[in-house]
Amino acid sequence: MQAKQDAELRKQAIELVAERVSRRISPSKQEADEEKRFAAEVSKKISGALDGKAEIKFVGSAARDTGLAGDMDIDLFVAFPKKLDRQEIIDRTIRATKKAVKAKWLMRYAEHPYLQTRIGKFQVEVIPCFKIEPHEKIKSAVDRSPLHMDYLQKRLTAAQKRDVRVLKSLLKNAGLYGAEVEVEGFSGLVCEQLILNHRSLAGLVESAAQWRPPVIVDIEGAYKTATGTEVLKQMFSGAPLILVDAIDRNRNAAAAVNETNLSKFICLCRAFWQSPTNPAFFSRNAPAPDKKKLRAALSQREHSLISLEFPKPNLIDDILVPQLRKSASAIARQLQLADFRVFDSTSFCSASQCFILMEVESDSLPRIKKLQGPPVADAKSCTRFLAEHSPEYWLRGPYVEGSRIFVEKKREVTKAVALLKKIIASPKEHGIASHLTAPLRKARIHEGHALLSSKGLDENALRAMEYFVFRRDWWLAPKR
Amino acid sequence: MQAKQDAELRKQAIELVAERVSRRISPSKQEADEEKRFAAEVSKKISGALDGKAEIKFVGSAARDTGLAGDMDIDLFVAFPKKLDRQEIIDRTIRATKKAVKAKWLMRYAEHPYLQTRIGKFQVEVIPCFKIEPHEKIKSAVDRSPLHMDYLQKRLTAAQKRDVRVLKSLLKNAGLYGAEVEVEGFSGLVCEQLILNHRSLAGLVESAAQWRPPVIVDIEGAYKTATGTEVLKQMFSGAPLILVDAIDRNRNAAAAVNETNLSKFICLCRAFWQSPTNPAFFSRNAPAPDKKKLRAALSQREHSLISLEFPKPNLIDDILVPQLRKSASAIARQLQLADFRVFDSTSFCSASQCFILMEVESDSLPRIKKLQGPPVADAKSCTRFLAEHSPEYWLRGPYVEGSRIFVEKKREVTKAVALLKKIIASPKEHGIASHLTAPLRKARIHEGHALLSSKGLDENALRAMEYFVFRRDWWLAPKR
Repeated sequence: MQAKQDAELRKQAIELVAERVSRRISPSKQEADEEKRFAAEVSKKISGALDGKAEIKFVGSAARDTGLAGDMDIDLFVAFPKKLDRQEIIDRTIRATKKAVKAKWLMRYAEHPYLQTRIGKFQVEVIPCFKIEPHEKIKSAVDRSPLHMDYLQKRLTAAQKRDVRVLKSLLKNAGLYGAEVEVEGFSGLVCEQLILNHRSLAGLVESAAQWRPPVIVDIEGAYKTATGTEVLKQMFSGAPLILVDAIDRNRNAAAAVNETNLSKFICLCRAFWQSPTNPAFFSRNAPAPDKKKLRAALSQREHSLISLEFPKPNLIDDILVPQLRKSASAIARQLQLADFRVFDSTSFCSASQCFILMEVESDSLPRIKKLQGPPVADAKSCTRFLAEHSPEYWLRGPYVEGSRIFVEKKREVTKAVALLKKIIASPKEHGIASHLTAPLRKARIHEGHALLSSKGLDENALRAMEYFVFRRDWWLAPKR
Repeated sequence: MQAKQDAELRKQAIELVAERVSRRISPSKQEADEEKRFAAEVSKKISGALDGKAEIKFVGSAARDTGLAGDMDIDLFVAFPKKLDRQEIIDRTIRATKKAVKAKWLMRYAEHPYLQTRIGKFQVEVIPCFKIEPHEKIKSAVDRSPLHMDYLQKRLTAAQKRDVRVLKSLLKNAGLYGAEVEVEGFSGLVCEQLILNHRSLAGLVESAAQWRPPVIVDIEGAYKTATGTEVLKQMFSGAPLILVDAIDRNRNAAAAVNETNLSKFICLCRAFWQSPTNPAFFSRNAPAPDKKKLRAALSQREHSLISLEFPKPNLIDDILVPQLRKSASAIARQLQLADFRVFDSTSFCSASQCFILMEVESDSLPRIKKLQGPPVADAKSCTRFLAEHSPEYWLRGPYVEGSRIFVEKKREVTKAVALLKKIIASPKEHGIASHLTAPLRKARIHEGHALLSSKGLDENALRAMEYFVFRRDWWLAPKR
């Protein structure tokens, strides 16, 4: 009884906080109206140029009133009948748009090409797609957007829209907002479906504070059978959060969310549930990164920081970020194979440079390595072992210890920097991702603090480095 | 067929080698006769002084012709009826011996007191004991010796006695001879029982080359039942070599042999079986330890050697050696608890000093330590973890990684030498053995080579250090 009352009080508090925060973060009525008016105008012009052969749909958070203030994205989907072919709808859209709206249109390429421009304060995108029905097989990834728009627009109440904005703000403040590869967090669409499923921000927070991964959210009950849960776990195996897309039951809408970020979200909700009125949840002031503090913190660690800096290749983030990550873990693996203990590693970019950082427990290893051989009782294996590890490398032994024989050998590499130089010299052989092998050959190696003196580090890169050095998910211990 | 012929050839070769080696290592006929004559003389005198109330038995390797040349031990056991009490037989033996044989007798103390002296080239011991029957409960550990004498004297042939001497020489040369705590190897008595059981040196070597620990040798077939093996393993659990004592089936005559030394013995027999004519098996020339070579070898390692040197307390080896070992492993454990990686450790003594050596992978640790917390899903444990590891020690975090929370803390100790100083300051609290706590307080700490400049290192100590540094059981790879 007490617990129930307590929960009720917390929900009311969250409701109040949401109301207050919402005022600060939502676009003004005027802003929202202006945005919609502008979108309607542009839509009308393009529609005219297409002779009504396609339907123009204004979708996305601006259209649904779930965007944050200052978010000026206008997404217009041009929906064609399914029978047309891909190239046709792209050509028609480009022709009509360029004819109807005079602006400096840029061609962009995702799964298929689309147009982008800036008109006044608005960022406008015009995207061709096919008209499909819910749960029908899509022809292109973008086909779902108009369906999501229909689905959510019909269902989200004004209060829920407000809650979506507050949730986005909460996540943004914690670095968990966005499905991009850099974030691997919660997209706007995931926020909307979560609020819809749990009815309110308070409902979502109360529930998420208790989540145990893997978490399954199935708004439409598409898998509401005895074996549904098992089927889903099989379909999306490894996913920590399975959010069955309301308009496509074969898709996990939250596929971008990785385990760490789901865990962070659970902790965040738990902390927010505990003290919803703590203003830190929505307004962490992040001062500019401070090189002095970073230098001091690094010197406190006494680990060995070794970093690689190399020119940033001209790639979109969707390709660059995973390639950097892959390369960083390949380097970490190479260090570990050579017996260096990698404490932590990270990768990030500035405007012009890429950085891969390795923190190792020690940057040099003893010259000698103890190799365990087979049990003495296994004569054949002993002979083979002694033959394989030939005497020229023995520094100590062979000897018997307990029931086994051992030899101690010279290591080939004893300095981490020497290993990194080898990797730079032949990146491909060491598992560096394809687009980075060429730039990595030009890499500079910084030891310890030296990185902080690099001119290539801009504020963004310093911020990434700051999180690496301090790595504090503050909401885990919000009282401090 | 081929294998059988091959084995036969090897056995013949071992026979030839034994014959040749035996000539060099056995006492001369004259030496042996002189020894026996002398023993008989002394026995007669003591017997006279006891008025025939006890039987004097000349036992041990000299009595049985199984000793090595230059081995001048004369062990005389004075066997009294069981009904007498302990103090009585001790008093009578001392009185009679001192009366009958004028010499500078010393009192020695093992399980019970006995007399020792040097007369000419002979080391004479006179030991009181009780007369018992085989497998009867003993009153004192020494009571078995006359029974062993009877048993072995009756059974060992001249050829077997020769083989015992050759086996002892083989073991001595490999550092495996002797049941003392410093060696934990094969006693003379174990050698005799092994040869008796396997009929010859060649038979023993052929068999031992195939041994798989735990090895059971049961000469008299005392446990020749369906469950005998299991019973023995239970009785002597953990023993790698169970040699059922021929005259006391409740005793493992090879209890002193540790796992490493049994494994070494197996390898040694295998190597000897492979190339019996290699003279190295009986005449390794061990040059005096070379400080220069030691220094060079140590500088090749790049491990951190840290050693403690402290005054040797006035204790018999049976007590000192285990206490040193216990203390060395306590220190190793302390280092490991503090996250230092102990590569190897050893302890040894010179005439005046004790040494404990620790080889650690690195003598300093990073300031920071990563502590894994509970899974995020376990809210209570997370709260407890964050409360236990209080913020004042956080250097990084708390943060979420994968499904768990982590904090990174300051280490209390980052230098191995600092930890050793702490141990020296309060030895008892750190598990140092009782007799060493006082001397350890006076310990000096040497880092790396510095130990080699210590005046306390004599040749014996240097030899122990040499085995530690090179640790080569040469017979594992005899060709080199």
